[in-house]
Amino acid sequence: MDDSIQAIHTGLQAIVGSDQIFTGTATDRWSRDWTGQFEGMPLAVVRPGTCEEVAAILRLAGQYNVPVVPIAGNTGLNGGAYGAGSILVSIERMNRIREIRSDARVAVVEAGVIVAALDSAVGQYGLTFPLTFGAAGSAMIGGVLSTNAGGANVLRYGNVRDLCLGLEVVLPDGRVLDLMTALKKDNSGFDLRDLIIGAEGQLGIIIAAILKLHPRPVFHATALVALEDLREAPALLNAFQDASGNAVTAYEFMSRSYVAGYEKLVPTARRFFENFYPAVLLVELATVRNEELGELLETVLGDAMERGVVADAVIAQSDMQRQEMWSLREAAAELAFRKHPVIDTDIAVPVDCVAEYLERIPELGPVST
Amino acid sequence: MDDSIQAIHTGLQAIVGSDQIFTGTATDRWSRDWTGQFEGMPLAVVRPGTCEEVAAILRLAGQYNVPVVPIAGNTGLNGGAYGAGSILVSIERMNRIREIRSDARVAVVEAGVIVAALDSAVGQYGLTFPLTFGAAGSAMIGGVLSTNAGGANVLRYGNVRDLCLGLEVVLPDGRVLDLMTALKKDNSGFDLRDLIIGAEGQLGIIIAAILKLHPRPVFHATALVALEDLREAPALLNAFQDASGNAVTAYEFMSRSYVAGYEKLVPTARRFFENFYPAVLLVELATVRNEELGELLETVLGDAMERGVVADAVIAQSDMQRQEMWSLREAAAELAFRKHPVIDTDIAVPVDCVAEYLERIPELGPVST
Ligand SMILES: Cc1cc2nc3c(=O)[nH]c(=O)nc-3n(C[C@H](O)[C@H](O)[C@H](O)COP(=O)(O)OP(=O)(O)OC[C@H]3O[C@@H](n4cnc5c(N)ncnc54)[C@H](O)[C@@H]3O)c2cc1C
Ligand SMILES: Cc1cc2nc3c(=O)[nH]c(=O)nc-3n(C[C@H](O)[C@H](O)[C@H](O)COP(=O)(O)OP(=O)(O)OC[C@H]3O[C@@H](n4cnc5c(N)ncnc54)[C@H](O)[C@@H]3O)c2cc1C
Repeated sequence: MDDSIQAIHTGLQAIVGSDQIFTGTATDRWSRDWTGQFEGMPLAVVRPGTCEEVAAILRLAGQYNVPVVPIAGNTGLNGGAYGAGSILVSIERMNRIREIRSDARVAVVEAGVIVAALDSAVGQYGLTFPLTFGAAGSAMIGGVLSTNAGGANVLRYGNVRDLCLGLEVVLPDGRVLDLMTALKKDNSGFDLRDLIIGAEGQLGIIIAAILKLHPRPVFHATALVALEDLREAPALLNAFQDASGNAVTAYEFMSRSYVAGYEKLVPTARRFFENFYPAVLLVELATVRNEELGELLETVLGDAMERGVVADAVIAQSDMQRQEMWSLREAAAELAFRKHPVIDTDIAVPVDCVAEYLERIPELGPVST
Repeated sequence: MDDSIQAIHTGLQAIVGSDQIFTGTATDRWSRDWTGQFEGMPLAVVRPGTCEEVAAILRLAGQYNVPVVPIAGNTGLNGGAYGAGSILVSIERMNRIREIRSDARVAVVEAGVIVAALDSAVGQYGLTFPLTFGAAGSAMIGGVLSTNAGGANVLRYGNVRDLCLGLEVVLPDGRVLDLMTALKKDNSGFDLRDLIIGAEGQLGIIIAAILKLHPRPVFHATALVALEDLREAPALLNAFQDASGNAVTAYEFMSRSYVAGYEKLVPTARRFFENFYPAVLLVELATVRNEELGELLETVLGDAMERGVVADAVIAQSDMQRQEMWSLREAAAELAFRKHPVIDTDIAVPVDCVAEYLERIPELGPVST
């Protein structure tokens, strides 16, 4: 075994050079996640700079039967990049934005590009790469593709799957799968792209991608909406979508106990409503045009209040008020991590079953929503 | 061999009953396509009524090593449902719309439901299943999913892949793969759904699907736009999209020779422009709200004419004019099938490469665009 470990190290050195190999405590950055749930010493962390180097690493690992785990921003919450005893392949050096084609609204990027960095780079063209979530400043394209991340704008733009046109992937045996198409319609062969997206690196290592860009919204309208009955939420969402031509970017539910918990956590925070309601929704619309978005919100909400669907509502009158509303929402992680034990995972339920689902949660025991 | 054919027929009879088995000339409806390009005698056509029957047929076929080809509306243009010597499994009897959940905007349908029939069924809820193309009155959900069809609204709503949430599939060995989720975000396991969509039946037989519905647009604005340079088309599309909040449903290019060919074919047709231009575009916007869509078209077009991007434009002033514009576009098949030989296939090119591609086509010889 020692012999083969030596041979692996020699092989890795020949591929990436000794500067790009880390072992022992030098692997700390990659060998534990920030939640402290997953920790384990890899055989080595390597940082290849090219597709060819990645392919050579995979062939070497295959030869010695050593597991390989790709790692990007190491922000994942479920141990997907945990790699005790493995060769951890960090893709962070492959971080070039190769091309921004503003007319076609696509960007060609390497897998190590940081999500937020791509969004700022395309901003100068009036475009956005709309994927965003708490860790967008650290997570990388290869990581978000492999987890099919969603985030705060998922309602409007879909998961990363919906934002990806093409992929370049090194397969476990070192062959390169070239799916780098910028086509909106590509029906040639089986849909391997979508198979690799969300596969958590199990099918290969993503080297590069062609991603869709969208026009950057410049106008926002934000409101907190109180409902007596969460069952009204789906139809209300449809009303917002129809009135605005699908301009809803966020539609976030907060329960009575969540809002109460927030007021305990941040006693100085502004109280938006006198009462505690069973359901509070954060609604945000955004467009690229100078639309009367605020008026539109008011019209839909006014109508819903008349029909008794909405119990109360506050529309943000300033950027500061918008921030205050988002602060309420963004305390979720902080509130959750105060409970023990934490099992942090995504749960998805069909839109028209959310209310029933939330009602039944208490039956399951102490789960926080 | 004769013995095993007899055994297969006996087996099929036990599964679906002799009423649902067709052989010899009784298979005509399924054994040739309407273009006359593909024709071949199947061993038998069977019309199962349930998922279990489909599974039993596949197990039987596996036992005797006979190929199986699924067939839906038999409108495909490339022989995907060609099955000489095979058991052709027609799914047309499994044609129930199981459920329309208007709040969640999903429909649960069997694979034999006709595309246009689904769209009319959901119309009463103010919803649309927006997939449409020349054969939507005959093509079935199982067929359009297996070809990942696009059609006239693809720009707005994507291919069928983008309209499908869940699938029920019988695998070649008769096992049933239950992917019947109505979730917008489903990251559990590998993305088998998208692997099966577009696979032309090679991975299994689709029995049922959960499909997305959209609000039914009620207002339309349609224009023909003449360009001196097709290179201007992508930026102009972006201008329409941004001004209308992505309300563009159609953006169809017709070349100089196409328009000239149409005028020869239909000499009585209205001439929209005095001159022949290198590029004519059919543009259509549609929304659910009473928007000033016509005005919006005028604003964008006026601006583009001032900048010299658009050479000429006509906005439909009535439903009849809208129809006349679409007639120009819809003559494509008729114009194409007057040439010989016909090779009818889809070609996809990245948006910002279309102009260059069309310029280079003549180099390839006589290809019609
Ligand atoms: C504060 C916070 C908020 C979040 N909010 C959301 C949210 O709202 N919605 C949501 O969907 N997610 C959310 N997430 C989770 C988020 O999706 C992941 O953290 C992110 O996608 C991981 O990206 P990463 O670059 O850090 O990948 P890593 O954590 O490094 O890796 C993630 C997985 O991808 C694999 N992988 C990495 N790179 C590659 C590659 N090049 N090729 C193949 N496989 C690779 C790894 O092996 C691992 O299995 C949140 C996370 C945090 C920390
Ligand atoms: C006039 C006309 C215009 C068209 N315009 C367009 C267009 O604009 N855009 C576009 O994308 N396409 C277009 N098409 C092609 C269209 O996509 C196909 O005709 C249609 O999708 C086939 O559906 P079908 O039900 O007839 O399937 P079939 O022709 O019966 O079968 C098609 C394929 O799917 C498989 N299959 C059928 N049912 C199942 C099942 N239940 N499970 C698994 N596999 C199955 C078959 O084996 C075959 O490989 C057009 C076709 C016509 C005739």
